[in-house]
Amino acid sequence: MPIIRVELLAGRSVEQKREFARSVTELASDILGCSQASVAVIFDDVARHDWANGGHLESDKAAGKT
Amino acid sequence: MPIIRVELLAGRSVEQKREFARSVTELASDILGCSQASVAVIFDDVARHDWANGGHLESDKAAGKT
Amino acid sequence: MPIIRVELLAGRSVEQKREFARSVTELASDILGCSQASVAVIFDDVARHDWANGGHLESDKAAGKT
Amino acid sequence: MPIIRVELLAGRSVEQKREFARSVTELASDILGCSQASVAVIFDDVARHDWANGGHLESDKAAGKT
Amino acid sequence: MPIIRVELLAGRSVEQKREFARSVTELASDILGCSQASVAVIFDDVARHDWANGGHLESDKAAGKT
Amino acid sequence: MPIIRVELLAGRSVEQKREFARSVTELASDILGCSQASVAVIFDDVARHDWANGGHLESDKAAGKT
Repeated sequence: MPIIRVELLAGRSVEQKREFARSVTELASDILGCSQASVAVIFDDVARHDWANGGHLESDKAAGKT
Repeated sequence: MPIIRVELLAGRSVEQKREFARSVTELASDILGCSQASVAVIFDDVARHDWANGGHLESDKAAGKT
Repeated sequence: MPIIRVELLAGRSVEQKREFARSVTELASDILGCSQASVAVIFDDVARHDWANGGHLESDKAAGKT
Repeated sequence: MPIIRVELLAGRSVEQKREFARSVTELASDILGCSQASVAVIFDDVARHDWANGGHLESDKAAGKT
Repeated sequence: MPIIRVELLAGRSVEQKREFARSVTELASDILGCSQASVAVIFDDVARHDWANGGHLESDKAAGKT
Repeated sequence: MPIIRVELLAGRSVEQKREFARSVTELASDILGCSQASVAVIFDDVARHDWANGGHLESDKAAGKT
């Protein structure tokens, strides 16, 4: 049942996503009481120029502009 | 009024999206009682390595890894 | 596969949601080429004071305030 | 950095959410390489009459209507 | 065109939402170059026991449990 | 605290996003009563063939097909 959506800055590898998807599915099954088969995980890569924290784009922070 | 968001594995054609958008807008108007003009439909293509069901990335299933 | 999320102003009945869920699932299966079993539909009721169009809350429009 | 959004059928306890939030934050930190402090987790409880799988509302399944 | 979705801890008043919706719609029109009429703003109140930062539910922080 | 997500048709520049992120963060801080540091803004560019209003893809409108 649960749908787990992960928004993160682009740059993680498929290996990291694979391991996270596997582990979070086990967690959801263990703690939330659902079958592993029913868990969906969706990753949403966000570019640094599309994510701001505290009013500053992450791309500007990386470039030392803030 | 309604906003209909469709997350789907990448690979559908623009023709499929065009037909789905038209049909789902009619459906929403007929069943939910809103004007067709007020319906928004947004498609969100998800890559196979960004979607896991049952703990396994769809890209791994396609590759026969699970 | 597809996950279809419907944001709409609160006030539709369960009967309307039941019929919409059934019909949109058939549509997705027919047009997008997926099994009906794989389609998830999630409704998200939004209160009129939580939705603004053109800068005005829907609750204010209903009350004739705009 | 990551924002983890969990849509699930209503009915899980605060204890389950507390444990899941704590564990998934550790997981994200370990696997995705971010600080625990930067992880946000948001739960979104969905009523059974607002979630359909395979075209049938979960509330109808629970009531044996499908 | 733009759809602006605001997830926030429950507790803001309708007056705050009304003012924010009006102001952010003007901002979007001015900066992003769209008509005010085309801007939608949706607020999504999140309960403190449904939002965790750094692995701790906000409700636990408020209660001094962390 | 607030997470502000902006879905918009692709085509805005990084300068526009930078200015909008800065301004909307100030607005959220002023009106909603949160620290600027706690505000996250995420932009989600949507292609014209992935967005339909009134049942017609924006890409078809641009091409004069509707």
